Amino acid sequence: MIKVGIVGGTGYTGVELLRLLALHPEVTINVITSRSEAGIAVSDLFPNLRGHVDLAFTEPDVENLASCDVVFFATPHTVAMALVPELISRGTRVIDLSADFRLKDAAQWEQWYNMPHTCPELIEQAVYGLPEVNREQIKTAQLIAVPGCYPTATQLGFLPLLENNIIDPSHLIADAKSGVSGAGRKASIGALLAESSESMKAYAVAGHRHLPEIEQGLNGASSQPVNLTFVPHLTPMIRGIHATLYGQLNQEVDLQSLFEKRYADEPFVDVLPVGSHPETRSVRGSNVCRIAVHQPQGSNTVVVLSVIDNLVKGASGQAIQNMNIMFGFEETVAINTIATLP
Amino acid sequence: MIKVGIVGGTGYTGVELLRLLALHPEVTINVITSRSEAGIAVSDLFPNLRGHVDLAFTEPDVENLASCDVVFFATPHTVAMALVPELISRGTRVIDLSADFRLKDAAQWEQWYNMPHTCPELIEQAVYGLPEVNREQIKTAQLIAVPGCYPTATQLGFLPLLENNIIDPSHLIADAKSGVSGAGRKASIGALLAESSESMKAYAVAGHRHLPEIEQGLNGASSQPVNLTFVPHLTPMIRGIHATLYGQLNQEVDLQSLFEKRYADEPFVDVLPVGSHPETRSVRGSNVCRIAVHQPQGSNTVVVLSVIDNLVKGASGQAIQNMNIMFGFEETVAINTIATLP
Amino acid sequence: MIKVGIVGGTGYTGVELLRLLALHPEVTINVITSRSEAGIAVSDLFPNLRGHVDLAFTEPDVENLASCDVVFFATPHTVAMALVPELISRGTRVIDLSADFRLKDAAQWEQWYNMPHTCPELIEQAVYGLPEVNREQIKTAQLIAVPGCYPTATQLGFLPLLENNIIDPSHLIADAKSGVSGAGRKASIGALLAESSESMKAYAVAGHRHLPEIEQGLNGASSQPVNLTFVPHLTPMIRGIHATLYGQLNQEVDLQSLFEKRYADEPFVDVLPVGSHPETRSVRGSNVCRIAVHQPQGSNTVVVLSVIDNLVKGASGQAIQNMNIMFGFEETVAINTIATLP
Amino acid sequence: MIKVGIVGGTGYTGVELLRLLALHPEVTINVITSRSEAGIAVSDLFPNLRGHVDLAFTEPDVENLASCDVVFFATPHTVAMALVPELISRGTRVIDLSADFRLKDAAQWEQWYNMPHTCPELIEQAVYGLPEVNREQIKTAQLIAVPGCYPTATQLGFLPLLENNIIDPSHLIADAKSGVSGAGRKASIGALLAESSESMKAYAVAGHRHLPEIEQGLNGASSQPVNLTFVPHLTPMIRGIHATLYGQLNQEVDLQSLFEKRYADEPFVDVLPVGSHPETRSVRGSNVCRIAVHQPQGSNTVVVLSVIDNLVKGASGQAIQNMNIMFGFEETVAINTIATLP
Repeated sequence: MIKVGIVGGTGYTGVELLRLLALHPEVTINVITSRSEAGIAVSDLFPNLRGHVDLAFTEPDVENLASCDVVFFATPHTVAMALVPELISRGTRVIDLSADFRLKDAAQWEQWYNMPHTCPELIEQAVYGLPEVNREQIKTAQLIAVPGCYPTATQLGFLPLLENNIIDPSHLIADAKSGVSGAGRKASIGALLAESSESMKAYAVAGHRHLPEIEQGLNGASSQPVNLTFVPHLTPMIRGIHATLYGQLNQEVDLQSLFEKRYADEPFVDVLPVGSHPETRSVRGSNVCRIAVHQPQGSNTVVVLSVIDNLVKGASGQAIQNMNIMFGFEETVAINTIATLP
Repeated sequence: MIKVGIVGGTGYTGVELLRLLALHPEVTINVITSRSEAGIAVSDLFPNLRGHVDLAFTEPDVENLASCDVVFFATPHTVAMALVPELISRGTRVIDLSADFRLKDAAQWEQWYNMPHTCPELIEQAVYGLPEVNREQIKTAQLIAVPGCYPTATQLGFLPLLENNIIDPSHLIADAKSGVSGAGRKASIGALLAESSESMKAYAVAGHRHLPEIEQGLNGASSQPVNLTFVPHLTPMIRGIHATLYGQLNQEVDLQSLFEKRYADEPFVDVLPVGSHPETRSVRGSNVCRIAVHQPQGSNTVVVLSVIDNLVKGASGQAIQNMNIMFGFEETVAINTIATLP
Repeated sequence: MIKVGIVGGTGYTGVELLRLLALHPEVTINVITSRSEAGIAVSDLFPNLRGHVDLAFTEPDVENLASCDVVFFATPHTVAMALVPELISRGTRVIDLSADFRLKDAAQWEQWYNMPHTCPELIEQAVYGLPEVNREQIKTAQLIAVPGCYPTATQLGFLPLLENNIIDPSHLIADAKSGVSGAGRKASIGALLAESSESMKAYAVAGHRHLPEIEQGLNGASSQPVNLTFVPHLTPMIRGIHATLYGQLNQEVDLQSLFEKRYADEPFVDVLPVGSHPETRSVRGSNVCRIAVHQPQGSNTVVVLSVIDNLVKGASGQAIQNMNIMFGFEETVAINTIATLP
Repeated sequence: MIKVGIVGGTGYTGVELLRLLALHPEVTINVITSRSEAGIAVSDLFPNLRGHVDLAFTEPDVENLASCDVVFFATPHTVAMALVPELISRGTRVIDLSADFRLKDAAQWEQWYNMPHTCPELIEQAVYGLPEVNREQIKTAQLIAVPGCYPTATQLGFLPLLENNIIDPSHLIADAKSGVSGAGRKASIGALLAESSESMKAYAVAGHRHLPEIEQGLNGASSQPVNLTFVPHLTPMIRGIHATLYGQLNQEVDLQSLFEKRYADEPFVDVLPVGSHPETRSVRGSNVCRIAVHQPQGSNTVVVLSVIDNLVKGASGQAIQNMNIMFGFEETVAINTIATLP
């Protein structure tokens, strides 16, 4: 049994961590913090946890957190970077679900997040927690930067193509559709049911903060610099990301075999049979990424369809997958849940 | 490990049985039948099960089924009554999720279902599988009639009031709202997203087949005959039942204590604190019934709010709860899942 | 052509007024105010109005408003009561969509809204703008209090029964289901799509502010004091109210004829044939109230199903219906739109 | 007043024609046919039309139809081609909302629809009813082929770019998202709310029947052959298409001016300001196409966002727009409705 702490448990990644960790046989949740809800029982805020989580939110306290084996940050950006150095220095391992340590270039981070990065010295040490790429480094990592939701779906779809140099990296398009839980659990007019239901729209076409993260990841797999056009869309559903990815093939290749081989040993990437169209509901509540690859009309355009649950494989499930790897647990334990369908 | 068979696995209660049984540590699923889909892999129909269920659908075969320790019927009415006598005679235990054995009065069954009942001799033997009422009989039952979804939510809400004779049984109202998965997985215009989304309507006000089942259950708890007005509504969501129940109190009583005492030892009934309003999403995908009791404006009208997931506590989860009791497993094993929220 | 002003045009009743008034042949919209959005083009906030409404929001200004023939208040409570006395004194007619002048008993208003009423002297003069009850008074009214959404659906359903003394007024139940636009266009966590979609819940069971308004209206039609249990529910859809009403009949009567006769001359109340179940989508975007009446199982419980669009017949459409009556226009002009279906 | 007939009025384009035509001041609906619903009142099937449409469905009868000034076909493909020759020969004008006369190459039609075309001689005569391209020919047309929904949104988005030769026509991508009403009003499991809500998926990636129609239209505007990758997606909403279009610019150009100029005189194409993201709800129930154009990150990829209501500008509204042009009515009459928002 390891002792776990959670900083910032009042958002959707927080409650999802709790849902999954509450049934994890190797974990005790020691502390969950929230400045705004300190003193409130977790299950008062999230009644789905009644009978499963008895904790109350507390003010963040470094002593308490440092006594844990691992601390998850389920916080907006900048919160982790303020606390992580102290925790790391005391030997507590950290899994950060926020964006603070995802970008390797501090200057780029500062440009996209429009503020100084307060502990750039930890950026290099941070391991980007995409197990399908960095499983070995994750095992011994002190600090994990859990990938964003769009970056997870997009990278898993493009990686087999870029690693094998079969598409033109200077001409990638990711047309991504996300459920509104991606906007987080915070009051806003745009995310009201009355505003976002029964409608579809693109947003942030000029530039979304996940763009540099995705490009960084794709550049790691590509022999030549990547240029990506990334267009996210708000979709009238709660959970799910559907990334539709387009690339220009530079050779004939058996795409299906390529993808199946790449992910043959991956417990959480499922390559569907030829001609399939994955649905986001097939991964709702589960840690799986389902992928299908198409080459329509015999043209040289490859189309990859990649779906995840943004709160599970796109956040909290992947965070626990990292934890399982870090602590030598079976990688699938507690996150081997099956999507509810319908 | 017990061997389990499922008859009729292509509907929503079928896939939900599979989702829950696939992770049950004491169960092997031996056979799953479907005439229409025989030969098809289960996970082709339900991609959420990929990697978890390797079976294919087969034609129903009594030998195969009889070799199981228990057979679930997840079928429309009349299918179970055709096969159950043979299975029972061979010693196979049966858990029927359909309506075939719910009503104790065969004549009443024939009136509401408008056809003859073909094995009325088994009706008496069948145990109505509401563990909160019949746990002892379930332990040794050969044949379980799993309660309907509306009847589960409604009975659990009214029982404490009727058992204590504190409301007028001749004047009960159940205003129930159900998600559209209650209509089953079958092609119909009325249940299309384009028809049933963004809309609300009552249906079957003149008489719904769950009415006699509910009245039978309530009569079992009441010292005087029950008269119920039952109005079901189609709600634009996939899962969930919200039953709003109205009764006339005949005395002053501490309603909160009454409910808490009644369900203190029940693992799957959760009485919420005073003043609460349960949401169906708090039980989505879980086997819990959440209940709140109100006495608004100090009048003598009691209002009970009772929510379940119609496919779990209202069908497949409750069926497995019965199985756990019948075979001496821990009652909560494999159905102790937590609702996904959001 | 009359000149119209709108105070508080940034909410859902505001944009709905604009949608309907923009195509009204007898109306010019002179001014629309909003403190928070002053200077912003209306069509920047509500792009559906591009090409139809050229106005920009302005700070509220009494001179401007007083120069209109009629001013609509589409504001939270307390805004109207601050401005209305001045406008009335200058001869401008006022149609208030808020709750400020709905209750005839100032003390009751102060109790439910928990603050002093600042112009109780105008309460008596205000006409409750339910045309099906008060058409004659509306014609000459200076000040209209537009009924709330729940009160409109509930009163229209109960009126024929109470006016004819055929139900017990001391035992009424209104189980009402509303789309989330009823909560208004304001940032709140509870009304996020991620929170309120795919879920159903009751709220304010202990007491909702529409309760005294409904009881006041029903008392006006009843020879004996009314006692109502009112339970509103939040339904996962944008628009629509479905009120399911229960009463105890004290005599045999032809309910269908009763309802048809009561509303024979009403352009916006549509009594459906025997056995019908109205859907809220059949009135979406339209000013119609559709009603069906049932007496299930031959019991003495009458069930009335009454549906409206909460933003049209439940607010802005009814406000314009009042305006049409006040200014001698054809009552249906500009609000004779047909619901979009699907 | 012209006399109008509708063949096949039981689908979604049928009811939408009726909703719009019922309030058209220059039109009398003389006949509406349906084999399956003959004898049934239209308003029994579509209660939103109660009080507005008094007709009943009748069996299709050529005499009746030929007596109309214009006949709309709101039918599956192959129905129109069987009746149109007779109607045309008698001088009745025809507006076909189906796919029968959209493709100019009969062989291509037969390949995509997998059956012989029974009146290829009328194909040349048919005018493709996209007013923004063919307004002059529409005025005098005997036979209109109303564009499909995806083709309307996609062509209006690409046209300004192709007409000006500023993108590479051999590398176009259209990633389109449609509400489920696009699948029509017919019983199917895949379009059930329980199947298609809370989920997103691509479909028909290997080839959708709208692909040749779109390519034909784009080729008409392009000096060089067009090659399009078209990926449609099923989106969990009732109405709306959001087409996200990608092209490679071959020169620097003021995209915003280009689009604004192209559509300056078009009553139903609305080019949004720089930086905008159109929402499908802004056109729900209206005949408008809203477009925004982006060039993200200064790359040479242009991104066009184009939204329509698939049942209005994508079908019935556009059909009426054609009728208005054909009969010399004001082009916007009866289709100048404003989207309901929220």
